[in-house]
Order: sequence, then C-alpha cells, then structure tokens
Amino acid sequence: MAKIKKQPRPKAITPKGFRDYFGEEVTQRSEMLRTIAGVYHHYGFEALESSAVETVEALGKFLPDVDRPNAGVFAWQEADEHDPEGKPGDWMALRYDLTAPLARVYAQHRNELPSPYRRYAMGPVWRNEKPGPGRFRQFYQCDADTVGTASMAADAEICMMLSDTLERVGIPRGDYLVRVNNRKVLNGILEAMGLAEDDPKRDDVLRTIDKFDKVGEAGVRELLTKGRLDASGAYIDGVGLGDAQADPVLAFLTSRADDVAGTMQNLRAAVGDSKTGLEGIGELEQIGELLAAGGYGQDQILIDPSIVRGLGYYTGPVFEAELTFEIFDEKGRKRQFGSVAGGGRYDGLVKRFTGQEVPAVGLSIGVDRLLAALREKGRLDATPKGPVVVTVMDRARMADYQSMVAELRNAGIRAEVYLGNPKNFGNQLKYADKRNSPIAVIEGGDEKEKGVIQIKDLILGAKIAESATLEEWKERPSQFEVPRGDLIAKVREILASQDEPDE
Amino acid sequence: MAKIKKQPRPKAITPKGFRDYFGEEVTQRSEMLRTIAGVYHHYGFEALESSAVETVEALGKFLPDVDRPNAGVFAWQEADEHDPEGKPGDWMALRYDLTAPLARVYAQHRNELPSPYRRYAMGPVWRNEKPGPGRFRQFYQCDADTVGTASMAADAEICMMLSDTLERVGIPRGDYLVRVNNRKVLNGILEAMGLAEDDPKRDDVLRTIDKFDKVGEAGVRELLTKGRLDASGAYIDGVGLGDAQADPVLAFLTSRADDVAGTMQNLRAAVGDSKTGLEGIGELEQIGELLAAGGYGQDQILIDPSIVRGLGYYTGPVFEAELTFEIFDEKGRKRQFGSVAGGGRYDGLVKRFTGQEVPAVGLSIGVDRLLAALREKGRLDATPKGPVVVTVMDRARMADYQSMVAELRNAGIRAEVYLGNPKNFGNQLKYADKRNSPIAVIEGGDEKEKGVIQIKDLILGAKIAESATLEEWKERPSQFEVPRGDLIAKVREILASQDEPDE
Repeated sequence: MAKIKKQPRPKAITPKGFRDYFGEEVTQRSEMLRTIAGVYHHYGFEALESSAVETVEALGKFLPDVDRPNAGVFAWQEADEHDPEGKPGDWMALRYDLTAPLARVYAQHRNELPSPYRRYAMGPVWRNEKPGPGRFRQFYQCDADTVGTASMAADAEICMMLSDTLERVGIPRGDYLVRVNNRKVLNGILEAMGLAEDDPKRDDVLRTIDKFDKVGEAGVRELLTKGRLDASGAYIDGVGLGDAQADPVLAFLTSRADDVAGTMQNLRAAVGDSKTGLEGIGELEQIGELLAAGGYGQDQILIDPSIVRGLGYYTGPVFEAELTFEIFDEKGRKRQFGSVAGGGRYDGLVKRFTGQEVPAVGLSIGVDRLLAALREKGRLDATPKGPVVVTVMDRARMADYQSMVAELRNAGIRAEVYLGNPKNFGNQLKYADKRNSPIAVIEGGDEKEKGVIQIKDLILGAKIAESATLEEWKERPSQFEVPRGDLIAKVREILASQDEPDE
Repeated sequence: MAKIKKQPRPKAITPKGFRDYFGEEVTQRSEMLRTIAGVYHHYGFEALESSAVETVEALGKFLPDVDRPNAGVFAWQEADEHDPEGKPGDWMALRYDLTAPLARVYAQHRNELPSPYRRYAMGPVWRNEKPGPGRFRQFYQCDADTVGTASMAADAEICMMLSDTLERVGIPRGDYLVRVNNRKVLNGILEAMGLAEDDPKRDDVLRTIDKFDKVGEAGVRELLTKGRLDASGAYIDGVGLGDAQADPVLAFLTSRADDVAGTMQNLRAAVGDSKTGLEGIGELEQIGELLAAGGYGQDQILIDPSIVRGLGYYTGPVFEAELTFEIFDEKGRKRQFGSVAGGGRYDGLVKRFTGQEVPAVGLSIGVDRLLAALREKGRLDATPKGPVVVTVMDRARMADYQSMVAELRNAGIRAEVYLGNPKNFGNQLKYADKRNSPIAVIEGGDEKEKGVIQIKDLILGAKIAESATLEEWKERPSQFEVPRGDLIAKVREILASQDEPDE
C-alpha cells in the first residue's frame, strides 16, 4: 500500500445521482421482485436476464426526452486492447430500460425462441439524466412482455396481470387504477384535426393532452390555440390551432362515460371517419370485453382516453398504473402518489433489426417507486429485528461464545458473537442497540462457574427505560438468569413475547 | 419510425464477452442467491446494495492483473451537460468487485454504521478483460464482510460460513474444501529468504508458489533458481535465486502435516525468526482452534500453506474454496472443477479514504461458477415444466379460454392461453412443446356443445411417441375427455402422475 499513501486521498462518495441501499431497503426490494416474478411466472412468462451492457447501435434511442435525443445514456467507446492494430472498439452503453434489450434478444435468438415469446425481466437500468429529489440515475424495473402476437388478448392479459401484481404486493383495490388508452385513437384525433403524420404540431398536441389533469378542459383549449397565462404568471405560448381544429381533442379528453360502451360512443364521435382512430376504438372494445369477462371492474382497470405516456415507440394500446391515495411530499403538501407502472403495444421495435414487423406488448413496473409508496403508507416494516448478540466477557473464551452462537443458529435463531474489541462492555450493548438486536446473551466468569447465563431482553429494556415513571413497568425485569442449558428455550420465549402486542 | 428505417439495420448481438441468460438459468441463480443471502443473514450480516457505478477515484486499482494495472475496468468520462460551463465531468466506472465499493461505503457512512459493520452484497460485477470460453465480462458475486475488527474470530466465522453455505446450496461434504493460508506467513518466508519488502523478486516468488499444484516440488525449485523446460518444450526463465535461498519456499510448500499442530511446527521451522511470519502462524493457530471448537473437520476447512490468492490487498489470512470433484471439460478431458469462492483479511482498503487503518475480512462466492458446477453434476433440473397451455379453437371465444386460464391460475396452476395466430392447430401444439408444457387443454365447438373439454398429457404423449413399439405404452391414452367442470381436478391428477417415477 506504500505507493497509494503518497497519492491524495480519494473522496468516499457515490457518484452524483447514485445512492447506496442498506439492510431492509435491499431485502424488501428483493422480496418485492420475488413476488412480482412469482406472478409473472404463474402467468406463463419465462425469465430472461440480458447483460447490463449493450452496443449503442443495438440499444437505439428511444428515451422519452425528445428534445435531447443523444442524451440519457451512459456510453463509452471500448479501447480494443485485444485488437493487434489497437484501433478503437465499439461504442457500448448501459441499458436505459429492459425493452430495448428485449428487442435485441428477440431479434438475435428468434429462431430458437418459442413464438409468441413471453418473458419477464427485472434489474437495474441506468439513465444519464439530471438527478433530483427522489430521482436517481440507477433504478429497478420489472417487466413482462409478449412478443410475436397482434392479439388484443395479450394486451388485456398484461393489464389484468398488472392489476393482480399490484394487489399481490400490498396495494389494495381502490388504492390503484390501471388506465388504458390507445395510441391509434390519439392518431385518429390528430387525423380528424387535419394534422399530417409528419406535422411537428402533433408532438405539441400530445404534450398538451398530457397536461389535461393539471389545467383542465379550458386550459387545454387555451394551450392548443392562443396560449395561456399559467399560475406563476408566466405566459405559455399556444400551439396556434384554430378553435374548431381543437374541438376533436376536447371531445376526446372528455369522452369518458360511466361505462365502456358510452366512452366508445364518444370516442367514435371524436375521431370522425379516421380509419386509424376507428381501428384503435375497436381494439379498446376488445380489451374492454376481455377485462369484463375476466371479472375486472372499472375500479381496477379503466379505459381512459386522457393518458398518453411519453414513449414514442408505442403503436397501439397504452396503459399506466397510478396509485390513487394521497401522500405528503417533503414540504408537507398533500399530493397524489402518481404512476408506478406503464406499458403498451410497440409493433416496430424488433423491425429495427430484422426489417420485419413483430407485434409486441409489454409492461414495466417501477419497483423503487412502488416500494416508496408502500413505505409512505406504513405498509413495510421500518426497523426489523437484528440478530441476537452473544457478548464477549472473556476474550480467551471466544470458542465458547462461538459455540453458543452456533447453537442459536442451529435452532433457527439469527445470532452472532460480538466481534469488536470486547474491553468496554458498554460498547457491546451500544452495538446491539444499533443493530436493533432483540436480545443480548452474557456469560462472564461468575456465570460460567455457576453454570448459568444472563439473557437481556433489549426491547423490553428500552421500553422500561423510556417509561421510567410507570410503576408497572419498573417491576418487570428485563434481564434473566437461566441455566446454560436453557439458552434456546429462554431466547425463544423472549422473542415470542416481543412479537405480542403490548398489554 | 420513419427516420430509423433509412439507417442501416443495427446488428442484433450482445457485446463481445457478454451473454443473455434464459429461463431456468435466471431462476436457478436467483434461488441460489436467495439461499446464500439466507445463510449470510442468519449469521447476522445485513444487506447492502451499492450502486453499480462508482467514481474511478473511489474504486482504485486492485484488480489481480498486476501486469496491466490500468486495464480491467469499463470506465468513461461524464459529459457534464448540467454544468453551465460545459466542462467535462468525473471519470466513472462499473464496479469490478463488491469489496472496493464496500470500502467506499464504509468510509462514507462510518459514523452512522455499527462497528463492526457486517454486510453482505450480491450482484453483477464487470471486468474489461479478454473474454474466453466460460469467461464473461459480467458475472455475479455474492460477498460477506466484517469491517472494523482485527479478531481472528471474524476470519474463522467467515470460513465456517463459507463451508455452511456450500453445503446449503447442494455441495455435499467431501465435494468441496476450504483451504486457509496467511499472507503474513508468506511474507515471513520472503523475509527468511532475505528478500526486502520492495524487492521485485517477491512477486516472482509468489507467482511461482501458485504453480506448485502444477509443477510440484522439483518444478518449483527449478523455477525459483535456474529455470525450467516446461511440458511444451519452452524454456521458462528462473527467478535466479540460489539453492539455499529457495529452501524456505520449499519447506513452506511441503509444510502440511496430518494435523494443524504438525503443520504449524513445520511452518515455524520455515519462517525462522521472522516476526511477521510468527505472527501469521499465531493467527492460523487461533483460526484452527476456533474451527475445531466449532466442529469443522479438516475435510471441510483445511489449513494449507500452498494457496496464495492473486489479490495484492490481502494482509493476513486468505482462503479459497475449491470443488474437489472431477468434471469433463468441453474437449472431454477430466479436470478438477477448481475454485468457486475466496477471500481474506484486507486491513488497508478503508485507509485509502480515511488515513486510518480499518481491519476487515471478507468472502466472495462466484455464483455463476457454482451454478455451472451444480449443472455439470446434474444437481439442477435442466428443463423444468412450462405452463399448461389452453389452446384456441375459436378466435371469437377468447374470453372463454381466458376464463379457463384464470380458473387454472386461481387453483395455483401455472397456465396461459395460446396468444399466437390460432389458425394452425399444429403450431399451437408445437408452441406447447417448445415451452415444455405438461398439458394442453382443448375446447372446440363440439366440446363446447357437449359441455366437455379435451385434456392432453403432453409428457405421456411424447413418451408414447418415442416408444411406439411397446405394446403396454400404446394402450395408454394420453388424451382425456372430461366434463368442463372437471378441468382443475383432471389437470391436477395428470400433473401429479407426471411427477411420479415411471413404472
């Protein structure tokens, strides 16, 4: 290490926008991934884990940020040291989602894969974006996709599976809503407005539709036409459409009726005779029928024309799962939790590689957001129990303490011996406290001689310390002397009592 | 998609040295990671997931490849678009192991973390190395470390935990061996040889020791002194030591006796009066005592002076787990499977950041190698069952088929409806075959009218097709007509019969 000493010390920090996850944050996420994988697998999907690194060429540019099409990924050029001529190698990048790699995998292995190919995938993805509060540059996604079928039964199935998954991970009915729309209906509206396929105003209109939730009907009309003074007093330029041209958008946005049939009727009126629009409505009707036959109510999955979803590659049905309960943000303001999952049909992604259109539909769950939501609602255990700590009273008798720990572990009890410097016994108890240990075991020289051990109930001890004025608590001992042979029995008894609710 | 069409088609390939994992490869790995995490957690370790990306500065250069100290990582310079002056940002890299990030995490959070800090971590790591058969640039590690204690009880515990873990994932006693050595003993030998701490010959000697398994005692002596003609006929230059100077190395390599005490005695003779060497022997003795007290035999964990381990950062005990059974390599040659895990004490890693020495010891399991070993030995199910497939005889009745599938899923049976083009029924059965489906369910118009369904046992069907000459098989039907209401009961019955061994 001599050479390193002379260098300036490196800074011990995560790169900007990255973070570390500790203890329960990690185990709760793996449990959630496991649960979701269980649902996907039960539905017949197979696991796939593609590499985190792809060639830039294979990944393509499908990030939602249309204003900066080259940004958004972490990429580097391989220095091909293995090439005898030393010429620079391929551009590589970290995957930014799990859909682009799926398209590559399907194109690469299509002759061996079953068709349709139904796969699920989970893992981190990376975005080279400006970090913000709660926005990180590495986060988990958990996807399922059916590649190779145009059947709306695949789209309906994915919506039903999303609903099942949310309920399985602990979001009860009423606390979430899967909203379904169809990109073709949107395109039909744009056609009905007389905007050609390459008209740049199409993107402006889509972006305006996305603001419906915030600015309402009148606001959307203003934004589509002459512009609008926003809440902050700034003037937002309008798209510049005529009032009549904006009509189909408003008809579309207000098309939701009490039942699917009513919504469909309103949509039909909005798209006029656009062939694409009518096709989209037909698809939504099929999905609606399958959902109804499956027993999924509008309180679970709702056909709702107001959702757009950012990604440009969707070609048919799109859907989004929102949590509908309110939470308080970091400034104490009430707000809706918002979107935790989304997906849709993308019939063009594989074609990039093969030239042949391969219809596909998929779903992506933002696992980290879902975990955050469950934490906000207090549905995840914040500080689960640490291990039982066997303290060290006599350094020379480490083997004895290790045997005690082995006995506890063999009895199925999580346990460890204190491995720090044992000189200061207070530090041992502080350690147990920091680990949230339920119990400390003590065997000093006196105890050893008498054949006993001390077992300290740390949770009860903490309660007694907190409620020092209550007589009933004072009388309860939190430390017990038991014969050495009763170690397991007594530890089990205390652990069980700690799990009971307080009297 | 209009713009993309005009570009040449991207190649659908994984970058060189990366691969995709399908189906059971993925689920078997997650099961193994879960099992290992369970053991680590039970031993009192807490989960940690650090980001995959670190600053190059924080990562440092600790890869074993001493000849190319700057190679080995995937790194890039961040283009800091968020900086108003547009100046280039930090150098970032993908982690190459889980130990360097742990040192960074510990240095960054040391004031909040318990001490000792006991953490486990699992996930992919990336090495920018030349790929080869079975050598990939992304692979999984599964680590556990105790940071902040110099106690040999921590080292002994990690060895015991490694032994427990290997047995838990399905490597029986006798099929593996954890071998323990101590870097200080090695340094003592180098001292006894009269090589100063900065003598470049030290590395040559260590590399030669690593070849002991291959070239034996005489070979090592030749390599240390005048050089050696290797099996291929090439002459390998010697280190250039005198014969007497090579003696301690040979004494060291042949020091293993039948019991720990005997080995220690031989080592003492080999290191002479080197203080470092005697300290290392003392540490091995302590570990040996704790292992014996824990009931671990020399058939599980063996103190063995011949292991070196590549990483330069080890400062005390080092250990390595080997699988001892033989397998056949791709060319059909018998060979030992070799190392699947390793670790040791590294007291200097955190000091890079803080200036203070923080003693630490850890373990890393190469999960992908372990899985490969279990596959070689036939201990992992190669082709587990796919989902029950409900076929589509009438496209218009998709909702009915979906209901059947829902019924099966609700009964806990993995199932799906065929989502491809249903026109060609043969394709539906081919699909079921490719998915390794145990059962296909068929309900055509006739069946619907009669209130029955056809249930096809695909596994029995395949067996009958294979054994067409056996009369007893021929008579067994593999397709059953049952009332629609008996769907679940009949499917359960067939699934159970498939799990029974053949008569």
